[in-house]
Amino acid sequence: MKPIAIYWRNAVPNPAKVVIILEELGLPYQSKWLELEELKQPAFESVNPNGRVPAIIDPNTNITLWESGAIVAYLVETYDKDEKITYTSFPEKYLLQQWSYYQASGQGPYFGQAAWFNKFHHEKLHSAQERYGNEILRVVGVLDSALKDKEWLVGTKCTYADLAFVMWNINIDFVMASGPVKWDIEAFPHFKEWMDAMKARPSVAMAMKSLQEKEIKSEGKI
Amino acid sequence: MKPIAIYWRNAVPNPAKVVIILEELGLPYQSKWLELEELKQPAFESVNPNGRVPAIIDPNTNITLWESGAIVAYLVETYDKDEKITYTSFPEKYLLQQWSYYQASGQGPYFGQAAWFNKFHHEKLHSAQERYGNEILRVVGVLDSALKDKEWLVGTKCTYADLAFVMWNINIDFVMASGPVKWDIEAFPHFKEWMDAMKARPSVAMAMKSLQEKEIKSEGKI
Repeated sequence: MKPIAIYWRNAVPNPAKVVIILEELGLPYQSKWLELEELKQPAFESVNPNGRVPAIIDPNTNITLWESGAIVAYLVETYDKDEKITYTSFPEKYLLQQWSYYQASGQGPYFGQAAWFNKFHHEKLHSAQERYGNEILRVVGVLDSALKDKEWLVGTKCTYADLAFVMWNINIDFVMASGPVKWDIEAFPHFKEWMDAMKARPSVAMAMKSLQEKEIKSEGKI
Repeated sequence: MKPIAIYWRNAVPNPAKVVIILEELGLPYQSKWLELEELKQPAFESVNPNGRVPAIIDPNTNITLWESGAIVAYLVETYDKDEKITYTSFPEKYLLQQWSYYQASGQGPYFGQAAWFNKFHHEKLHSAQERYGNEILRVVGVLDSALKDKEWLVGTKCTYADLAFVMWNINIDFVMASGPVKWDIEAFPHFKEWMDAMKARPSVAMAMKSLQEKEIKSEGKI
């Protein structure tokens, strides 16, 4: 199997979300680093017209694909034939998609806005900071409730739907530290236990380490 | 076939996004109206722990599902056996997911924030209004470029990925009217042509009409 090319910048959650899946499935990969100013240029826009990372090119199937949620769906359907981190049974396959879409539309963008207004916006907008800080608490509360009587979001094993949430969740301490909304993970014990179980996985440890790397690659195991 | 129950509020884009697909596929459905204050209450949270519409219950398969992107994927995979609005071929099936995730994560949340800060936030935050107004222009620009040399986002027919974008796009005039960022659809001719073609479809006309209705239903055609 030839290495899958992953267009890569470190320090941001979405490319690392794909690295977790590549590592879980033991797939070979090789990063293609992009400078910030290269994202919205024609060369990379011919790969991803939206000018964002991650994107992948898989030379084994000749697909070029962007949007982390779609990349994860592709990798799992194509390469996780043993269902290590997925289910193809009904209704589990659709419940996996439900949580995956919730992560992509309800967690990522809102946690990202909290980071923006707390860390990077050129003026302090207190009511915008409050809005997104409170939304983080609400989303974490939804996850905590969902995990009250079960270990994983879908079925009885860790799946790609659980793993999709990790990289933004890991950043909550950083995101909330300079904002007006108080954050204490101890208020969400089921959420905390779930996160601790995922942080102990080698794939997640590798993805966290990758946040500091300009180049990432793996020979893979298949 | 028994009618699919759709948890419903009018005047918001995401439930109507599901109505388009129900109509395209000729499926029978019946709405379950929710007042705003019922969304975050235990009765509905037992259906959708995230407390948002849409959600569906399909008595034909006994699935309960939320997140509009996942509901659309379920409906199309289960009921669009003739591939009227989908492809199951490679790589089209993954390109459909790519655009569907882009709509769910890159269009919906950001267009929603523009609406929030222009229409509903308790104070005017000019730089937040600018941020999201400019993001609408950027996303519409990405779609306009993608449609420069083709009629539809994926393949040679209108698919669920195109249709997913309609309800938020239709709202841009309303969202931008009271904001600081100038909007002129004439600057995006490919986008405009694509939107006009979709607005001419009976499914989209029905979904637009449904925005004003408290109860919606259909006997279906299958």
